Amino acid sequence: MTAAAVPGAAVRGAGAGRAGRPTLAVVGATGAVGGVMLEILSRHADIWGEIRLIASPRSAGRKLLVRGEETEVVALSEEVFEGVAVAMFDVPDEISARWAPIAVAKGAVVVDNSAAFRMDPDVPLVVPEVNAHAARMRPRGIVASPGCATLAMIVAVGALHSAFGLDELIVSTYEAASGAGRAGAEALRAQLAAVAGTELGTHPGDLRRAVGEGTGPFPAPVALNVVPWVGTDVAASADDRAGGADDRAGWSSAELALRDQSRKILGLPGLRVSATCVRVPVITTHSLSVHARFENEVTVERAHEVLANAPGVVLCDSPAEGEYPTPADAVGTDPAWVGRVRRSLDDPRALEFFVCADNLRKGAALNTAQIAECVAAELTAP
Amino acid sequence: MTAAAVPGAAVRGAGAGRAGRPTLAVVGATGAVGGVMLEILSRHADIWGEIRLIASPRSAGRKLLVRGEETEVVALSEEVFEGVAVAMFDVPDEISARWAPIAVAKGAVVVDNSAAFRMDPDVPLVVPEVNAHAARMRPRGIVASPGCATLAMIVAVGALHSAFGLDELIVSTYEAASGAGRAGAEALRAQLAAVAGTELGTHPGDLRRAVGEGTGPFPAPVALNVVPWVGTDVAASADDRAGGADDRAGWSSAELALRDQSRKILGLPGLRVSATCVRVPVITTHSLSVHARFENEVTVERAHEVLANAPGVVLCDSPAEGEYPTPADAVGTDPAWVGRVRRSLDDPRALEFFVCADNLRKGAALNTAQIAECVAAELTAP
Repeated sequence: MTAAAVPGAAVRGAGAGRAGRPTLAVVGATGAVGGVMLEILSRHADIWGEIRLIASPRSAGRKLLVRGEETEVVALSEEVFEGVAVAMFDVPDEISARWAPIAVAKGAVVVDNSAAFRMDPDVPLVVPEVNAHAARMRPRGIVASPGCATLAMIVAVGALHSAFGLDELIVSTYEAASGAGRAGAEALRAQLAAVAGTELGTHPGDLRRAVGEGTGPFPAPVALNVVPWVGTDVAASADDRAGGADDRAGWSSAELALRDQSRKILGLPGLRVSATCVRVPVITTHSLSVHARFENEVTVERAHEVLANAPGVVLCDSPAEGEYPTPADAVGTDPAWVGRVRRSLDDPRALEFFVCADNLRKGAALNTAQIAECVAAELTAP
Repeated sequence: MTAAAVPGAAVRGAGAGRAGRPTLAVVGATGAVGGVMLEILSRHADIWGEIRLIASPRSAGRKLLVRGEETEVVALSEEVFEGVAVAMFDVPDEISARWAPIAVAKGAVVVDNSAAFRMDPDVPLVVPEVNAHAARMRPRGIVASPGCATLAMIVAVGALHSAFGLDELIVSTYEAASGAGRAGAEALRAQLAAVAGTELGTHPGDLRRAVGEGTGPFPAPVALNVVPWVGTDVAASADDRAGGADDRAGWSSAELALRDQSRKILGLPGLRVSATCVRVPVITTHSLSVHARFENEVTVERAHEVLANAPGVVLCDSPAEGEYPTPADAVGTDPAWVGRVRRSLDDPRALEFFVCADNLRKGAALNTAQIAECVAAELTAP
């Protein structure tokens, strides 16, 4: 460990003015989301004292740049949480489930981006533009950040809900490969290299043969394909436990999560939600086609007004001029891009729209950073 | 012209037993759909006498294989329709609009796969598995085949409608590049070659810069992207004509077509339909995520039974075993593949499902061939 990485050590040099500011731990600093997080922390207002980078022992000793300073990655242990005010976790569910309570026991507030605590009734699920207030009530010392598909749409949906009163969501997703982490993006790139310049994609099974075992974290080839299955088969595992049929038969974990998380974030436990989650051959940025039904009549004009004024949303809706959101335009940017806003031709209370948001930014690192900043503001308030 | 291609000339050799059978004209034989059509005609029961291949003067003289015989392509003219019983058109709208009535005047029944006549009240819009009877009533001598996105889902939707009574469709599409013809497939392949092995797809605008003018028939890059705009801006052009606002503002021609055509084929003029049409980087085979609401309660079990017994449908629905439709598996096959059948968790009258069908087969050539075969059976019935 370098001096700067020793728990509790004062930060020197550029960080000299940071004395007294809260210490931040970034657990999972070397992952796909972690990389984006360091960039975001370097760009946002510099509110943190020390920033401690934490990863698996395998990555310990690597040096990463954050706020312009080379910072050594330290291995995850109980001790690294000494003196930490806020610990952000961007790691697999089982690592969060085990280590977040340890960080809390050491005195940190944990902001967790895994699925481990999202539906825990004692853990708030927070999107600062929608329910920032919820982050203050955290009986377990943990605040959860939602999944990337939910995050891509929920800022726009929340703004429209405030204006019109949401009644039902029917959603189809177009989810990027990096939603499954670095391994997902790498699998798609390798598959694209294998199919480029070939005639693959016009005969049944030829993509499966070409890709073979190279599907990475996906259950089928993603290059030149779309795969209507994201996550795991929740009902099957519930069946195994309960030995009976389940209402949730056939639904994927990603689809149920989008439903459960939307209800929790919006505070609408009875909200009707149907989602179909589909993986598409895009590296980064999730898109969603949303049919939203409201309690009150809607107009496209009023919806445009609401979306144009919603923080965290960019309205991009002039199809005649070629203006609608696509992943190629939204990737690498912070906001959710919303367009294709239409009123249903058969129902004056329903809107359709299309939304794109970078799944590594608003869908993960950015929302986690925003929550951590809310918590820091609360902790340091006079 | 070779002897075999001269209008009215008897077919020799392998075709000697074909005397007295109806003559078929294939207009647009050299296009993406035309190529699939020749393969289908070579594989289906050999009910035709002469098969006359017709294309633009540019393609005249080329020789194509159909039913194992080299057949010369002849240029489109009034004379080529002499003696033709059934003329299939797979050409741009404006060519169909001009030439279909000429073929009818020469005595042919036209089966048209363009958009020119689909919503003409005097032209039936036919999907043989759903409304074969409608092909017999053709005041203009023309039968239209629906668009590829509608065709991909309508056989499954029609079967479920018969069982449960359809009330509403909310649909998001995942449409392949070849839905825009050969130029679409070629543009996607060229874009994929340009992005393979690069880090493109993670910074805003880099795909647009890399692809430049190479978007082909699409308004934005399709490789590593999804584009929520298929077709043209109908309302804008209607506005130009009417000088006023339009309920259809913001809807694309493809979305309105899916709505109008579904209503016409199912004979449900009041059916509620909301569609969002999106282009994805798949060469061939359209996919659709469908939320269908019915008049009666549904169960997944009964829906499975209906779909398993529906002609033209393959049920592929066992996600725990990795069984759900994907374009890579459905491409090059005739049926619509249906899976991910779920009952809405909030509405016992609604089903979600995912369907894939080859847009050049059931979505175009196959349905046109099926209609032509229905007409031929009627014409030759004793």
